[in-house]
Amino acid sequence: MLSGCSAGLRLLVPRRCVLLSRSVTSGNPGRAAAVDGVLSAFRSICGDDGVSLGETVREQHGKDESVHRCRPPDVVVFPRCVEEVSALAKLCHRHQLPIIPFGTGTGLEGGVGAVKGGVCFSLRNMDQILDLHPEDFDVTVEPGVTRKALNSYLRETGLWFPVDPGADASLCGMAATSASGTNAVRYGTMRENVMNLEVVLADGSVIHTAGRNRRPRYRFKALPVSVFRKTAAGYNLTNLFVGSEGTLGIITKTTLRLYGVPEEMVSAVCSFSSVQAAVDSTVQILQAGVPIARIEFLDEVMIDACNKFSSLSYPVSPTLFLEFHGSERSLEEQVNTTEDITQSNGGSDFQWARDAETRNRLWKARHDAWYAALAMRPGCKAYATDVCVPLSRLPHIIVETKEDLIESRLTGHIVGHVGDGNFHCLMVMDPSDQDELHRVHLFSQRLARRALAMDGTCTGEHGVGLGKRSLLCEEVGPSVIRVMQSLKDAIDPNNLMNPGKILL
Amino acid sequence: MLSGCSAGLRLLVPRRCVLLSRSVTSGNPGRAAAVDGVLSAFRSICGDDGVSLGETVREQHGKDESVHRCRPPDVVVFPRCVEEVSALAKLCHRHQLPIIPFGTGTGLEGGVGAVKGGVCFSLRNMDQILDLHPEDFDVTVEPGVTRKALNSYLRETGLWFPVDPGADASLCGMAATSASGTNAVRYGTMRENVMNLEVVLADGSVIHTAGRNRRPRYRFKALPVSVFRKTAAGYNLTNLFVGSEGTLGIITKTTLRLYGVPEEMVSAVCSFSSVQAAVDSTVQILQAGVPIARIEFLDEVMIDACNKFSSLSYPVSPTLFLEFHGSERSLEEQVNTTEDITQSNGGSDFQWARDAETRNRLWKARHDAWYAALAMRPGCKAYATDVCVPLSRLPHIIVETKEDLIESRLTGHIVGHVGDGNFHCLMVMDPSDQDELHRVHLFSQRLARRALAMDGTCTGEHGVGLGKRSLLCEEVGPSVIRVMQSLKDAIDPNNLMNPGKILL
Repeated sequence: MLSGCSAGLRLLVPRRCVLLSRSVTSGNPGRAAAVDGVLSAFRSICGDDGVSLGETVREQHGKDESVHRCRPPDVVVFPRCVEEVSALAKLCHRHQLPIIPFGTGTGLEGGVGAVKGGVCFSLRNMDQILDLHPEDFDVTVEPGVTRKALNSYLRETGLWFPVDPGADASLCGMAATSASGTNAVRYGTMRENVMNLEVVLADGSVIHTAGRNRRPRYRFKALPVSVFRKTAAGYNLTNLFVGSEGTLGIITKTTLRLYGVPEEMVSAVCSFSSVQAAVDSTVQILQAGVPIARIEFLDEVMIDACNKFSSLSYPVSPTLFLEFHGSERSLEEQVNTTEDITQSNGGSDFQWARDAETRNRLWKARHDAWYAALAMRPGCKAYATDVCVPLSRLPHIIVETKEDLIESRLTGHIVGHVGDGNFHCLMVMDPSDQDELHRVHLFSQRLARRALAMDGTCTGEHGVGLGKRSLLCEEVGPSVIRVMQSLKDAIDPNNLMNPGKILL
Repeated sequence: MLSGCSAGLRLLVPRRCVLLSRSVTSGNPGRAAAVDGVLSAFRSICGDDGVSLGETVREQHGKDESVHRCRPPDVVVFPRCVEEVSALAKLCHRHQLPIIPFGTGTGLEGGVGAVKGGVCFSLRNMDQILDLHPEDFDVTVEPGVTRKALNSYLRETGLWFPVDPGADASLCGMAATSASGTNAVRYGTMRENVMNLEVVLADGSVIHTAGRNRRPRYRFKALPVSVFRKTAAGYNLTNLFVGSEGTLGIITKTTLRLYGVPEEMVSAVCSFSSVQAAVDSTVQILQAGVPIARIEFLDEVMIDACNKFSSLSYPVSPTLFLEFHGSERSLEEQVNTTEDITQSNGGSDFQWARDAETRNRLWKARHDAWYAALAMRPGCKAYATDVCVPLSRLPHIIVETKEDLIESRLTGHIVGHVGDGNFHCLMVMDPSDQDELHRVHLFSQRLARRALAMDGTCTGEHGVGLGKRSLLCEEVGPSVIRVMQSLKDAIDPNNLMNPGKILL
């Protein structure tokens, strides 16, 4: 059986979406008529500028940063507030048009492709930071607010939002895909940091997952409100919508947990003679209870690419990028314990990045890994695997994966959030080389199944989207898929919300 | 409209469940016949000892530690393994008999009462610790394993499970009610610490919420398996079942996240001249980023009761019980920062509890608060409120609540996990005094609504059960209730799983 992932790779061959306005509906006259029928109503809600049928706009909204081919929607709408989202959704519901939420398009599993056509809700015009409650450590943002925009806004407050997937993604999009990234080992993923969501359901109704919708809107606007830190009040809807990838509703606000900016931060780089030594160090650092903020692994292939792309000169060997947060005294203790451990595993002396500028350069190099990998083979495309395994299995799976890369004659750069057992193999491939594409597909499938055999998951943070639907079935089994499908059917009985994602 | 809570209070008047075997079904001949029809099949699954119709046994399983009156099931079964649970559930499903899971009966909201009769699944015979994976910081336990039993088992490993609701509850029961307690401010609640659940659904099918059911059972038995630390693979079923209070399925295994035992622990007690000063200190300690392990507030009424019950001599004034975990050096820093803050708020010098015995005595006194409150009025009953509000609202709501107690002429002891904004008012009342019961009911309703008006929740950790179903409706509103009901209908379409709980 070919997985959705393979579909993505097979369709990688560039194929420009040559479409005239609404020609995407040409094979579906019923939907074409429905779209025609609602356009004027859409315009009356969002204004003429808030509705686009333009080919370029539709193409921009039909793809993310993955290899999945562009699947443009029939029309793109740009609502300005939750009331407009709700009114538009009611129209889509009445006309049975699919709804695809769109944040920044930085996803990696094809989550925004309009595989059944329909209406893309681009949420970029809803970009307000609505509520900041420093004494309660929370903030509420609209879906157009990105991670970097929020942290800019917070700069003078002594607070920050640490979840950092690399891309400057929208925070509501990060909630929708259950994003995480380099800081998750200390601060958790979106699952642990989203406290409340405002969601528009497929029928246009608006809910607040942690129950704040009882408050009249004017009061919400007038008085910054906060949210409780824990609750046992009924089913946990917040964490059902986090990671639902737009298939259950459109997230129109998210309330996030904030943290005090650490008194001190320091980063370090440490090289090892083997993958095993680097990963063993990681496990021991965590076992020692060091509250490390980031611990990122780069294999020698990846570090070589980063050196070249970012003009660095780290030794070309398995490497850990580390970051410590805390008071001056606590940092000293964290660093001493960590150095003892890395040295006992044959690690190099630490190369330090103490001031903000040097630290930012270091982490920019880490976040540019994707582009560094691509730069090694100009004209090629990249695909990132995303398995996550129990910590104890990490050395074994990375070593096996590197052997598999050699046997498969593939270029793969391994980079990972090893403190969480999650790593990516950045595959760079020539999109015109069908044989290479096929080998990448087979390799990715083997890697995912290797993770499953080691009690892991096929996706630690990128989500299922289009690409991992079959692997999800393998991972969780038919009984769990039946439960997931029943939840989808309960909340979105007409399958209007981002159809064709997560579930086959 | 009277809430379920009021129903509990109104029914507090002792009324012994005088029932002969199966007489509970006398008003429902259809169910009586169904129970009669399955008894021999039950016995063929669990053995004769595994099925009880005895009045005493049924009464023991018809109530928890709350004021809700005993609602005995028609029959109690004692399965020994998940296969037996599944087989029993299939029979109940076929005969449309309600299923009520029972752990240790230490709940506080009437969650185990068989309000529609049916079959109580007492899970105490499933008491194995199945899997311990120290290097992955996780363990899997059956539902008969309690919190204290697990920590005893872990004693030599250097690991522990910190979630501590006070009672020696079963860990699967704690997952079912989303329990938390004194350590949550640092280590989180069950929501953050349950990594996987094995659940038997109403139709007898068995799922693993984080998808481990693909593994053949013999392999699960033979080879300790661990679980990944994060995933984005489909809907988050684990956190849907955590806190579902037995209304979606029977939890038959839970995989928990473990922590390294801190190098050092130290506890301290600090008295204040006002509630405001104690709570302000709490907020400032958290704002300063002190990773405090426990920070518990006791008002002067509560501390007086604890002094008398546990032979202590703390000043009778608003008090914080604190605990710090970490290395020796980190403790020093945490304690210094905390002392600076408490002293700036007029707090007393710390009274220390450094060695394990003194610390245990201190926390036993805290955990005995319930019995201490009861001991102040022999022959009385207790009811605990459980609101949780944003930290910034905490001083205000506690002060208002104390005023309300005086105006209502009620005895209330305030004790709380103030680091989470969660506190309990332990109401002691004479069950034969109808007027007092009525005042307690009105007071509890006012307190819950005061919390809702301050963006809080009616239940931080005790759950909804029978007692807070109406308040849940007020808290989340009809749209969210509709979504919750649709999820319940999707997973348990015949309403067999613990019917009458959470949702009205």
